[in-house]
Amino acid sequence: MIYLDNSATTKPDPAVLQSYQQAAERFFANPASIHQFGGESEKLLTRARQQAADLMHVSHNEIIFTSGGTEGNNLAIKGTALKHQQRGCHIITTAVEHASVSEACGGLEQLGFDVTYLPVDENGVVSVQAVKDAIREDTILISMMHVNNELGSVQPVQEIGEVAKDHPKVVFHVDHVQGMGKVPLKLTDSGIDLCTISGHKIHGLKGTGILYVKQGTTLFPLLHGGGQEDALRSGTENLAGAVSLVKAIRLIKEKETSGIRHMQELQSLLRKKLTAMEAVKVNTPYDAAPHIINVSVPGFKPEILIHALGEKGIYISTKSACSSKQSDESKILSECGYSRDRTASALRISLAYDTTETEIHTFADALAESIDQLKAVME
Amino acid sequence: MIYLDNSATTKPDPAVLQSYQQAAERFFANPASIHQFGGESEKLLTRARQQAADLMHVSHNEIIFTSGGTEGNNLAIKGTALKHQQRGCHIITTAVEHASVSEACGGLEQLGFDVTYLPVDENGVVSVQAVKDAIREDTILISMMHVNNELGSVQPVQEIGEVAKDHPKVVFHVDHVQGMGKVPLKLTDSGIDLCTISGHKIHGLKGTGILYVKQGTTLFPLLHGGGQEDALRSGTENLAGAVSLVKAIRLIKEKETSGIRHMQELQSLLRKKLTAMEAVKVNTPYDAAPHIINVSVPGFKPEILIHALGEKGIYISTKSACSSKQSDESKILSECGYSRDRTASALRISLAYDTTETEIHTFADALAESIDQLKAVME
Repeated sequence: MIYLDNSATTKPDPAVLQSYQQAAERFFANPASIHQFGGESEKLLTRARQQAADLMHVSHNEIIFTSGGTEGNNLAIKGTALKHQQRGCHIITTAVEHASVSEACGGLEQLGFDVTYLPVDENGVVSVQAVKDAIREDTILISMMHVNNELGSVQPVQEIGEVAKDHPKVVFHVDHVQGMGKVPLKLTDSGIDLCTISGHKIHGLKGTGILYVKQGTTLFPLLHGGGQEDALRSGTENLAGAVSLVKAIRLIKEKETSGIRHMQELQSLLRKKLTAMEAVKVNTPYDAAPHIINVSVPGFKPEILIHALGEKGIYISTKSACSSKQSDESKILSECGYSRDRTASALRISLAYDTTETEIHTFADALAESIDQLKAVME
Repeated sequence: MIYLDNSATTKPDPAVLQSYQQAAERFFANPASIHQFGGESEKLLTRARQQAADLMHVSHNEIIFTSGGTEGNNLAIKGTALKHQQRGCHIITTAVEHASVSEACGGLEQLGFDVTYLPVDENGVVSVQAVKDAIREDTILISMMHVNNELGSVQPVQEIGEVAKDHPKVVFHVDHVQGMGKVPLKLTDSGIDLCTISGHKIHGLKGTGILYVKQGTTLFPLLHGGGQEDALRSGTENLAGAVSLVKAIRLIKEKETSGIRHMQELQSLLRKKLTAMEAVKVNTPYDAAPHIINVSVPGFKPEILIHALGEKGIYISTKSACSSKQSDESKILSECGYSRDRTASALRISLAYDTTETEIHTFADALAESIDQLKAVME
């Protein structure tokens, strides 16, 4: 199998699964139970939280364990909106967000909030000036992704963080789900108040995630209850999940520098090979994140090519997995101004640290072959 | 180790952990990915959902996989409230709910909803007539637990379901977290619209749960996004978690009849032994669920006794794990009308199917011994 759909989800690292297994078996007591066995679970949770904080260069009380990226984004957005609605009802986001941000904003519109969806340029990038200009008296939140999940475009979130610093009443949320391990993000003194991370995008397990909540940032909890996670996210802690997530972050951080360089090399190679194919148009800009190459093959339905490659044991995707079963057109590419022949024929190839050069060659050859075969059938 | 804190959480069944492990390893593709590998994940998810539905005698499209009991309860309560606020803002619940229900209701009060907290009798049970009387023109939701997590009291939810049937615009939610596998609950044609189940209370894994959503029941999603779980709970599906939860439910259902009988016998035995101890007052009513015995030892701080038993490798708890680190008084016992010497000295012993008679004897002897030793120190 050649798995090139790492932006949809990644293969769990065996060491991550092992951490999960061990913690689930040996530390099953409820960390909230006051007996010694519960105390052991609590100690392990405290240690996991501290380790996550150290790896992210933040404070342990800024780490909120969640059930994943969608929960993190929803908690950040709705939690801010419901908490601060007395102060204002205006939210700024972009037109190219992941569904967990755009739909959360849409949900808030149903509740009476006012959302500005900023446009992007042909590379899928929002302008810092546009963000500045969009801020109003009643703006309570700016929410945007770091790295686009379809194109790989990198948003200028660090610069926007500087803008946000001038507006202390505006909460700034960054969806770092596709950025983690691919494009480093500085959180400390960054102007970023909330930052979402997902476990299963970094070889961790599904159902795990972290929302970074900068000290002093207040939220209306989506999950009220026993007061776990600083009362921002109640529910018996998924201790094994938290421990496994910390393991995944540690493994990523250890390999990050070389992993990014490796993916950049493969991305360049892949870009060269794809650019050489007449039928293929590369959509991903040159300064994108290193793990994604988005291309269009005008005239070919993506599902046909994906299926043909799948028959050869090669897995790539079209658009985001989270919107792949809806319309056949990529909203993201459309927002970048591409015409329908390109927005309706997009493929996403997404790499991991352990993707090999051989896999890239095999994939590119298989794609070219599949296109030729389909062309022959169509003619 | 003698683990008698099964109402806080249970030891994961090895077969459940194995199911998790296998699914996480082999079916890691995103079920939303349209390639064949994603298709395999989707198939497994569909099968797990159907199996859960069959085990619960409901329809597959009524099963919403969640991250646990707290999420289920919050989605049921806030999801109903935010969806139907145009129709009314009144919610009925009881004064003895788990924090994930009472705090969710409290959160809604902050947003302008009006909540009636019905009192309970000395056994911790709410009256059906009181529920009937509390229903108003603007009532949109009745939410209550099936089995009380501290006392084991069983609420007349099936009768209240009949009441709810006469009020088709009122949504009826049952928190079945402590009832599953202990007190059977009929969902079909029951008047129950929403029902919460948690994995880790039935030897499943933390971070897993189901919200039963009766066909036709509409909710405002807490987690917007890719539209997973019938758009009621977005987020990449925790497939391994879902598979493991179905395994846990199956194992529980297989053993339910004999397991309940076994726990009833142990509970009787324990009640007899505890009643015979002069210092101990039994709080759990006779017709309670079979897995909980709540007692008070007036004059003794629960944490002292819990610690003393813990030294001997015996683990019991005080109150709910989710409120155990807050006040030292049990709100539940207080609502039942107990005086402070009893509400401030409560211990909860909670059993599982595999608890043995020997363990009950050992625990009872150890408790008696600990009380004697502490008495000697105090005198």
